[in-house]
Amino acid sequence: MNELSVPTHRKTEFVEITELVQRAVAESGLTDGICFIYCPHTTAGLTINENADPSVAFDIITALDSLVPQGRGWTHAEGNAPAHIKASLIGNSLQVAFEQGRLRLGTWQGIFLCEFDGPRRRSVWIKIA
Amino acid sequence: MNELSVPTHRKTEFVEITELVQRAVAESGLTDGICFIYCPHTTAGLTINENADPSVAFDIITALDSLVPQGRGWTHAEGNAPAHIKASLIGNSLQVAFEQGRLRLGTWQGIFLCEFDGPRRRSVWIKIA
Amino acid sequence: MNELSVPTHRKTEFVEITELVQRAVAESGLTDGICFIYCPHTTAGLTINENADPSVAFDIITALDSLVPQGRGWTHAEGNAPAHIKASLIGNSLQVAFEQGRLRLGTWQGIFLCEFDGPRRRSVWIKIA
Repeated sequence: MNELSVPTHRKTEFVEITELVQRAVAESGLTDGICFIYCPHTTAGLTINENADPSVAFDIITALDSLVPQGRGWTHAEGNAPAHIKASLIGNSLQVAFEQGRLRLGTWQGIFLCEFDGPRRRSVWIKIA
Repeated sequence: MNELSVPTHRKTEFVEITELVQRAVAESGLTDGICFIYCPHTTAGLTINENADPSVAFDIITALDSLVPQGRGWTHAEGNAPAHIKASLIGNSLQVAFEQGRLRLGTWQGIFLCEFDGPRRRSVWIKIA
Repeated sequence: MNELSVPTHRKTEFVEITELVQRAVAESGLTDGICFIYCPHTTAGLTINENADPSVAFDIITALDSLVPQGRGWTHAEGNAPAHIKASLIGNSLQVAFEQGRLRLGTWQGIFLCEFDGPRRRSVWIKIA
């Protein structure tokens, strides 16, 4: 298992980790297989979406904020219920195939750590098979 | 394939299945690999989130109820359209790595069967590779 | 890697691809394993839900349209921000086990390509392990 460490800088933020994941694939020495990407946190998640225009991530964040607003009478005492809810909506694991040592992503796709309760240092676990 | 049977007791309920999944991993005899968890139902799903404070699951359920309310003019004739919609928002499959025979979950993470149209007896399928 | 080509015919549409995926499994010659299904697009996704009554897919589409409406002041300049947001809510990868050469789906489950910005020709990538 490869453990990435990813710092985040805002309360809510999508941090692109495509190159970190690609490096883990390269270091594995395998040329062909599947890369499993796992977020071990309960107030962060993982998604794959467009990395060309940063406004896409911005709009996803805006949409999630409007779907799951702060201050709605959530019962979770730590005050970060929306972050937990968003994490379950986005999901915490991904799989991407690789061939000839390169991740097979679509043309416009990047892999993002979705921070919903930052800033913090987050872990992302990579397993290559 | 390991088939778990999980009873649910309410219309909407998150049932923690972490220990059941851990047992399936232990019984496989494998020490290192990936555990694939699959929900074969269309009105239930699977998620990973905090298992320390039950109010987290409660808040996720509340949020989904408010995002996908009953009685919105859904066309599905069986009356459980919201349960189907929630199932697709949450997702029906997960993967978790294991090492030395133990699931590699984050500190606060538990694995939950998400019942959206109970009470029923549900199946969860475990494949270990 | 098996690459399926799937035409879509509307702006938003769920196209069932269960038989195409089953064929890819059969052609692999493997009898037992896991089928990884991947959508390389950023305005489309993949979900598993009921395929008996088409009103289920219709209601999921309606719900997503109401959760992520057009014309909400999205910043992404191409005008298809809602399609990107829906793609991240639904997810872009699935895994389904197979045994004796057949996908192990639940009784009512079908596999759907979720088009959110069509009509287009879409790709779905299948990896069998």
